[in-house]
Amino acid sequence: MQDLQQGCRLLVVLVVVTGMVSANTSCCSYPCENGGVCMTTGMEGFQCDCTSTDFYGTLCETPTFLKRVKLWLKPSPDTTHYLLTHYNWLWDTVNSVNFLRNAVMKKVYTLRSDMIDSPVTYTSEHSYITLDANFNTTYYARTLPPVPYNCPTPMGVWGKKEMPDVDRIVKKFFVRKKFLPEPMGTSALFSFFAQHFTHQFFKTDVKNGPQYQWGGHGVDVTHVYGKDKDAEAKLRTFKDGKLKTQLIQGEEYPPLEKDAPVDMVYPPGTPEERRFAIGQKVFGLLPGLFMYATIWLREHNRVCDILKTEHPDWDDERLYQTGKLVILGETIKIVIEDYVQHLSHYNYQLLFRPELLFGEQFQYQNRITVEFNHLYHWHPLMPSEFNVSGTTYSLREFVYHPEVVLKHGMHDFVDSLSRQRAGAFGPFNHGPLTIPVVTDLLKQGRQLRLQPYNQYRKKFNLPAFKTFEEMTGNKELAKALEEEYGDINAVEFYVGLIMEKRRYRSVFGSSIVEMGGPYSVKGLMANPICSPKYWKPSTFGGDVGFDIINTASLKKLFCNNIKGDCPLVSFEVPDYVEGDVLHDEL
Amino acid sequence: MQDLQQGCRLLVVLVVVTGMVSANTSCCSYPCENGGVCMTTGMEGFQCDCTSTDFYGTLCETPTFLKRVKLWLKPSPDTTHYLLTHYNWLWDTVNSVNFLRNAVMKKVYTLRSDMIDSPVTYTSEHSYITLDANFNTTYYARTLPPVPYNCPTPMGVWGKKEMPDVDRIVKKFFVRKKFLPEPMGTSALFSFFAQHFTHQFFKTDVKNGPQYQWGGHGVDVTHVYGKDKDAEAKLRTFKDGKLKTQLIQGEEYPPLEKDAPVDMVYPPGTPEERRFAIGQKVFGLLPGLFMYATIWLREHNRVCDILKTEHPDWDDERLYQTGKLVILGETIKIVIEDYVQHLSHYNYQLLFRPELLFGEQFQYQNRITVEFNHLYHWHPLMPSEFNVSGTTYSLREFVYHPEVVLKHGMHDFVDSLSRQRAGAFGPFNHGPLTIPVVTDLLKQGRQLRLQPYNQYRKKFNLPAFKTFEEMTGNKELAKALEEEYGDINAVEFYVGLIMEKRRYRSVFGSSIVEMGGPYSVKGLMANPICSPKYWKPSTFGGDVGFDIINTASLKKLFCNNIKGDCPLVSFEVPDYVEGDVLHDEL
Repeated sequence: MQDLQQGCRLLVVLVVVTGMVSANTSCCSYPCENGGVCMTTGMEGFQCDCTSTDFYGTLCETPTFLKRVKLWLKPSPDTTHYLLTHYNWLWDTVNSVNFLRNAVMKKVYTLRSDMIDSPVTYTSEHSYITLDANFNTTYYARTLPPVPYNCPTPMGVWGKKEMPDVDRIVKKFFVRKKFLPEPMGTSALFSFFAQHFTHQFFKTDVKNGPQYQWGGHGVDVTHVYGKDKDAEAKLRTFKDGKLKTQLIQGEEYPPLEKDAPVDMVYPPGTPEERRFAIGQKVFGLLPGLFMYATIWLREHNRVCDILKTEHPDWDDERLYQTGKLVILGETIKIVIEDYVQHLSHYNYQLLFRPELLFGEQFQYQNRITVEFNHLYHWHPLMPSEFNVSGTTYSLREFVYHPEVVLKHGMHDFVDSLSRQRAGAFGPFNHGPLTIPVVTDLLKQGRQLRLQPYNQYRKKFNLPAFKTFEEMTGNKELAKALEEEYGDINAVEFYVGLIMEKRRYRSVFGSSIVEMGGPYSVKGLMANPICSPKYWKPSTFGGDVGFDIINTASLKKLFCNNIKGDCPLVSFEVPDYVEGDVLHDEL
Repeated sequence: MQDLQQGCRLLVVLVVVTGMVSANTSCCSYPCENGGVCMTTGMEGFQCDCTSTDFYGTLCETPTFLKRVKLWLKPSPDTTHYLLTHYNWLWDTVNSVNFLRNAVMKKVYTLRSDMIDSPVTYTSEHSYITLDANFNTTYYARTLPPVPYNCPTPMGVWGKKEMPDVDRIVKKFFVRKKFLPEPMGTSALFSFFAQHFTHQFFKTDVKNGPQYQWGGHGVDVTHVYGKDKDAEAKLRTFKDGKLKTQLIQGEEYPPLEKDAPVDMVYPPGTPEERRFAIGQKVFGLLPGLFMYATIWLREHNRVCDILKTEHPDWDDERLYQTGKLVILGETIKIVIEDYVQHLSHYNYQLLFRPELLFGEQFQYQNRITVEFNHLYHWHPLMPSEFNVSGTTYSLREFVYHPEVVLKHGMHDFVDSLSRQRAGAFGPFNHGPLTIPVVTDLLKQGRQLRLQPYNQYRKKFNLPAFKTFEEMTGNKELAKALEEEYGDINAVEFYVGLIMEKRRYRSVFGSSIVEMGGPYSVKGLMANPICSPKYWKPSTFGGDVGFDIINTASLKKLFCNNIKGDCPLVSFEVPDYVEGDVLHDEL
């Protein structure tokens, strides 16, 4: 680390002395450690502002005594992960003793969310703090500011003068040759959950540029109810709080666009009877998204019926608004206790208990960052084909064909997705339809001047990788990457995420978990409904609504809303045996 | 209180039994105490949700043991006010001992801001919690939800079936007969500061209705820089970070609209050379607003010069953005240490020290409430006429004549406003030009279904008034009000604020102080620049910028930006002797 810093400073001095650039580039090597802020001083030199970091020294490199003790006591992310994924006997005990389970969960909440700066400090427009970062919500926020302008290289001071060609990178490292199955047995029901859930807040305003977005910066269930009051009005029946539906083969489905005229994205020529109206305009794209949209719609109307029985005096408006709050609560419950639980593969059973944060220092506000959006590009999880009740569909046959769900019926479709293996997250596993997406993403990452992958590792308390082999765990891959990037510190964000070796018992490498965890926990628990004034029975129509939230599960979500037998509802395929696919197979 | 509750419940039962209304109106009497939430149960009856209130019982009327101890230890608002406005010797000591002064200020910050629910829970659209309250920022927030629909009376269960006629109320209680001077010696420089400062966040979206607003919900200096990026671009020179100005008689003033084409409000026919372009579109209305707009403009450009000297390598953009952050910091410093200090008349000297809140439970987010907006209608402070360097102007001669400032020059104008006595806040002191404003305000308060004045007293830990005489401290006024409202619990919000008797050594009655204090402290300290990641020298261009903020004062703001001698800069007129005007003179 010291060597690296010295090297950088030497380089900066060299650059200034030789007059290659006129600007002060001394912050291009991110010389300040531990969250210290680099500020140039005059035409050369820099200062690290170590205020509120618990570190001091020229580069904020020395911890205060108290911080030193804390650091010494704190296990590394890898140790914590090891603990949480081993020692079944320990976790069995913790899971069954309420106060222990609560104590662990409280720690998870605070440790994860403390990693996220709130209020947010940066956008993609400035490499320094601006007021706009907080007040202009049309921007995605930024965890790390962009690489300053006028730096020696696009990545600061490391790597080549020009970034490697995007198309070549994609071809060399991303294209799926043969389908690689997800090694932890993840099902396609999971992949579509991820896509469905996250697209309520990943809403890039492509027209204005990748630094802009048009969402509400969090879990706001707009993907069910529509992006604003106007859209909501089009999707509502205005009777008993319910949303519009249509009956097809005895089952409730989203209404057609002609009956609920919200903006939807369908290819030209899509026949009217396949143009379904959904809260999020892109959810006609895939049957899996359509399935989740349908199931939440049914759940909302089911909850409204229950609320109406409990509150015969309530009008449509109150049933609707309260139903929406219940659905939001259920969403967070299921995300934490089913979805994140599956992702984590922890032996500890996660909990959704907002009251654990009462009395803690915790900011009930959230912003979606560009980095979280990039990190959540999990296209390798998408299989190349789907087996639905014996019929095989290629992904291409899925795209813009929501009616596949109608054809098989909800029961069979859900059952099939639960049995369908997702793809492995990693290199060489982007299917042909997702290649344009990853190509664009890499271009955007460069346009947004994302800092090098290793800078993000450090920001999230992970050690920077020293070599390509350490990052990939694969000699051949390491060599190919080194040829392209030259320097491990010049690897760009998304490439790092995909190329990083998988963690033990994990769908992802350590970076996705250690970055994604904080973003997720913060985003979920900072929701207003988790704050003390909201989180009480009366907010959700009394005990009856509160109980729906507190007992919600993925399985119940489907089984309560599918007539007859319950299908298999699982984020893990039924025939899965741990360890059946190794990362080294790649 | 108990009697009142029983009476209400009896009334509700009566109403239900006699079939006068079909809805469940049992929450119309706000039966739940201490922040408990009332929820109807079935067609009659109600339940109080006491979660997180530290109280229990059917009406959340019984404190937990710990809360009982806390309540017993906590002085009443009136006692605290008495302490803070007496005992000079004590406060002289506190003011001169740093750790005592800090400890008191930390207490002020937390006690005040804890009164404000954050995240916000209500808007004017629903008498219950909705998700929109948090996510839809086009609404003003609400501290108390609207009076439910279908209640026996417009105020819930109290008062008459119909509200008294607005015009009659205004005529009877508001119209200024003769000018009543502000009894604490407040100057017109103060009145305009209040108006100028608050109109960066009081921005009612009149076209869409009084429940909507178009601002950024806080201290965002949009009144200096413009409402959005587009407006900012029109006001900027894009050179050295500076804002556009024009030179008139050797002094810098805001540019003309033709040179900085932002939206401004001027009456038709206003000549081009009087159409100045300012960040807030209504600031051409009064010379006092124009004066503050000018002085902040000069201050921004002055700060940019200083930053440029310190950072010769910085471009226009960084100088501009950092200058803006410094101006915001100065604003808050001056508001707390000059403006609120004057308002409070505390012997304790207030402090702007954001670091005192680090480590505390404090939400760095803010929303402007409808109630705060109504509360800040301080039109009685506006004098009927102004003496500027010997020339007398009526208020009417001021309106849309910003050029009055040019005529006399900044020095003389500031000096004159410092010597000009403001009007007394209270009954019979709305000048003719402000009568339409107060008339509209009362109408809006009814349209927004604001809860009765006494409900707000209780929300802010003040005892509900039992009689009109207790409220007004004036028999005649009490009688006239009782004739109109019938019941002390039926007095509407703004009427209560204006009619309430003045507190000892205070510009206002207890309610404005005990409500306005929390809204203000929360709004000021919840600003992002006060949060740990922002509040450090590097955010403001290093020590040089940070020092400008930490040493800012009203006097310096003017004196640094007016050539030659410094005028008198004071929120208190120079000839003032305390106690020269009594409230009883009314």
